[in-house]
Amino acid sequence: MRHVDVLIIGGGPAGISAAIWCKRLGIDCLLLEEQSQLGGQLFNIFNEIIDYPGMRTKNGIEMQREMVKHFVEMDCLYEVNTKVLFIDERSKTVKVKKQAKKQEICYTYLILATGSSQRKLGVPGEQQMIDRGEVYSASADGERLKGKTVAIIGGGDRAFEGAHLLSSKAREVYLIHRSTRFKAREQYVERVISNPGIKVMTDTEVTAIHGDRHVTSIELESKNKEYKSKNLLVDAVLIRLGVAPNVELIKGKVATAQNGLIVTDEVHQSSNPFIYAIGDACTTPLFSSISSSAGQGTIVAKHISSLLTEA
Amino acid sequence: MRHVDVLIIGGGPAGISAAIWCKRLGIDCLLLEEQSQLGGQLFNIFNEIIDYPGMRTKNGIEMQREMVKHFVEMDCLYEVNTKVLFIDERSKTVKVKKQAKKQEICYTYLILATGSSQRKLGVPGEQQMIDRGEVYSASADGERLKGKTVAIIGGGDRAFEGAHLLSSKAREVYLIHRSTRFKAREQYVERVISNPGIKVMTDTEVTAIHGDRHVTSIELESKNKEYKSKNLLVDAVLIRLGVAPNVELIKGKVATAQNGLIVTDEVHQSSNPFIYAIGDACTTPLFSSISSSAGQGTIVAKHISSLLTEA
Repeated sequence: MRHVDVLIIGGGPAGISAAIWCKRLGIDCLLLEEQSQLGGQLFNIFNEIIDYPGMRTKNGIEMQREMVKHFVEMDCLYEVNTKVLFIDERSKTVKVKKQAKKQEICYTYLILATGSSQRKLGVPGEQQMIDRGEVYSASADGERLKGKTVAIIGGGDRAFEGAHLLSSKAREVYLIHRSTRFKAREQYVERVISNPGIKVMTDTEVTAIHGDRHVTSIELESKNKEYKSKNLLVDAVLIRLGVAPNVELIKGKVATAQNGLIVTDEVHQSSNPFIYAIGDACTTPLFSSISSSAGQGTIVAKHISSLLTEA
Repeated sequence: MRHVDVLIIGGGPAGISAAIWCKRLGIDCLLLEEQSQLGGQLFNIFNEIIDYPGMRTKNGIEMQREMVKHFVEMDCLYEVNTKVLFIDERSKTVKVKKQAKKQEICYTYLILATGSSQRKLGVPGEQQMIDRGEVYSASADGERLKGKTVAIIGGGDRAFEGAHLLSSKAREVYLIHRSTRFKAREQYVERVISNPGIKVMTDTEVTAIHGDRHVTSIELESKNKEYKSKNLLVDAVLIRLGVAPNVELIKGKVATAQNGLIVTDEVHQSSNPFIYAIGDACTTPLFSSISSSAGQGTIVAKHISSLLTEA
């Protein structure tokens, strides 16, 4: 069976940083990425990146290129298109699948850099909409959504900020939330409620997204029984339910907090001393950033290096 | 009196990152730097920087240029040549001196990014040697030290690594340590002890560095009374006593650990909720790096932003 001293799951900025640092410190290391390319959520950043100290890029793709270039120049070992199926923390083995081929890899230390994903509604038509590419950024897609009727689903900062941003571009904006309480900060809520161009619908659940070639309407259900079900004509849906850490693989195997994040100490060790977590799998969205993810990758590699040297 | 929401003391990578992020988040912020240029310890990195994810530079100066360029493009406010004389944490005021002019600045939140400094011997002749520019890097100055007699003072990794690196270049290498126990990792110690080109002197204190235009000898004292005092002819002295955090300004005002580092929580808040610390002032040298410092600057700015928004 293949053995590595450090196995990293996830090839976003946190995983890339950990791999670069492992290489820098002479640690035998392998990074696994499920997608066909390294970069993780960098592919979802469409605006300019102005907050990675020392390096500004036009967008996430440009940052991805620079990070991957560095990673490749350092001769870091990695496998793309490789899905981790199972982590057996007792035997310190990971089962992976690359195309049809299954394999087992044994590790001394495991670094989870699995990131986070946008939460979904889980309703009919949602995945089809995403697969058709009907995914919008409120800040970058103002022109694309000009004159359209837009529904934004959610009750947090990003939902309210999106509604505010699009209200000057779109023909109509609906902000739809399943509760009457909002997580968004008060100033955001007030700005939206006082905006006549935005219709706020509370106690309302979206039960389906309709449309064949593009979104045409959504199905709504009132939770306070004002109505049973109603169809709302819209041209675009922005789902802003926040993000959830990708921790399915490790659930029940290391301690997680109520919000799902993996609990780690100051060197990013989890409750299992052979398993570390970095990046959005253990960081609240409030504090998530490319630079903090990169910093965490550094700390973890340095800590593991000190343990391997002692051994 | 001038007031800022965030006052940052120290313009190394940690402080630069915090300032960029404050600007990014719309926070009123001012950075103070004692030296004539921003960059902090970047000026002491003479080798290639290969471990800041996404960006490789020839040396610290090149990294400094990129970071300062970014900082300036973001229109971050700063003052160089500005020494902080006193922090009054009760009135949340800082007394500073720029050239002859004294001034008071009032803050809502204070970020200490004061870094660390090489520990000194504190013996006659030491400061004169440093002021003459007789400061060497074992990895970069091999050619400059070729054929010379070199004394390395210290018992940690860097002392032993330096002795090993220079043994193939210098005519003679002395490794001088005041104790018989070494902090350096065993493999480093063994490599040096088994090297016939390196003379290891333990239980030995350096009491003076002699030389007018350049180092000519050092004065030694035996701690086990093998001899009272002896003069050793050397051409160069490398002091490798480790680093100490620059925390004089804040001593007794926030909690510090035994090693002198400012104690912080996971968002880098100190024991005083209005004072934060980032970078080498609160990070053990083992985990110190440009990327972790930059990451810490991000976290702090994001945390302060959330507090300012709530207020």
